[in-house]
Parts: sequence; structure tokens; C-alpha cells
Amino acid sequence: MYAFRVADRPTASLPGLAHRTLAGSAEGLQRLSVWQQSIEAGAATPPHHHDCEEVVVVSAGCGELHIDGAVIPFASGSVLVIPPGIPHQILNSGTGTMDLVAAFSVSPVDVYLPNGEALPLPWPT
Amino acid sequence: MYAFRVADRPTASLPGLAHRTLAGSAEGLQRLSVWQQSIEAGAATPPHHHDCEEVVVVSAGCGELHIDGAVIPFASGSVLVIPPGIPHQILNSGTGTMDLVAAFSVSPVDVYLPNGEALPLPWPT
Repeated sequence: MYAFRVADRPTASLPGLAHRTLAGSAEGLQRLSVWQQSIEAGAATPPHHHDCEEVVVVSAGCGELHIDGAVIPFASGSVLVIPPGIPHQILNSGTGTMDLVAAFSVSPVDVYLPNGEALPLPWPT
Repeated sequence: MYAFRVADRPTASLPGLAHRTLAGSAEGLQRLSVWQQSIEAGAATPPHHHDCEEVVVVSAGCGELHIDGAVIPFASGSVLVIPPGIPHQILNSGTGTMDLVAAFSVSPVDVYLPNGEALPLPWPT
């Protein structure tokens, strides 16, 4: 199956964060995953890192990328490029919902907390 | 540099198609590329294939994915999953511009025409 409707993809969530896996290992991918997430005002991803490359395209909202000790503000219409192994966190510091699409260079995607433990994800990757 | 503005990314084009490389080898990526493209009504990508996995997220417009001999109609809010080596073409069969973001499992991205020749791209990948 080559085409899917975003609205038909299963939803999952973390606190303040709504998630859809748009494409991943369930769609036969091994070297690519694409996620859609909406982050509520004031909410954030957990601080984490991956073993893979990541690119985030932000289509709505504004916030901060905390990465490798730096704080980088960004607005809607931004692209974030996150190298493998670099600790990062995306925070919605605005008043509206932040919408983003994230692409990863592997499938499934593993997420690691600052203590090095894997974060079990409530969605398929 | 971890954050870029989409509007500041260099633009390039093919007939009926406007392109921005959002992230690729120039940003230090080796296993991931992300492109943004707008396809005019009636226009299309060339028929082509890649050696890598590809996922396309369509945020505006409607059209057809011609892939491996099949014609798959899709609308705004669709995800297209294109395995490596499979010939495909994206056509805008609607009346408005089609906007999409495409993610690839490699950087740079090579594009091959149906005769197997590489298509020189007018943008960095």
C-alpha cells in the first residue's frame, strides 16, 4: 500500500503531545520513519536523544530547541536538524499548538533518556 | 547550526515545480534528506526512481501517484510511501498548487530516469 490518509493514522500521546506515526516499520520502511506531532502550549518533548539523524519541520507554533546545552528559539516555518546522539528537547513556549513533522533516518526509532535508558514509546515506529 | 527558516532556504525549480532542500548533505546529513516542493496544477515530477526509501507528506492539493504501473489518487492530508527502486511519478491533477514535504533515507539523493540514467538535479541534496 503506497498511500495513506494522515487522518486515518492511529493516534497516541505523551503528556501535552499528540502523535501519529505517518510511516515506519509497519509500512515496510527500515531506513526512514516520519512522525507527525502536536505539542500543546507550555508542553515539551522529554529530554532525549536518538542514534539516528533527525529533521523536524515546524508548520505551526513557536518554541525552543534545547540542544547540547544551547537554547535555540524558533518559529513556525522552521527546520530543525538534529545529529545522532545529541541530547535535545523541543518546547512549545508560545500560546498556540505547535505542529511538526519529524523524519528519522531509521525505522524503528529508539528514544533514549538522559540517563541512557530507552524510553518505551506508546506508538509504533 | 541546528535551526533554519524554511523561507531562507535556497529555491530551485524544474518545469512546474518549485523546490527547497530543507536539509541534506550541506547540513551534515548522510542518511536523511528533506525537501519541500510545490507542484503547479497540471504539472508533475518526471517519472523516476531512487535507490533509497521515500515518504511524501502532502499538505495541499490533490493528485495522482503513478507507481509500478498503478495509478493511486490522493488528496491533501495524504502520506505516500515509496520503496527503493520503484518507478514513480507525482502528478498534480487538481486546480490548485500541490504542497509537499518529501523525506529520503540518504543524503545526497540520486534520481534515476526510466532509462536508468541519473537525472542531474538543479538543487543541492
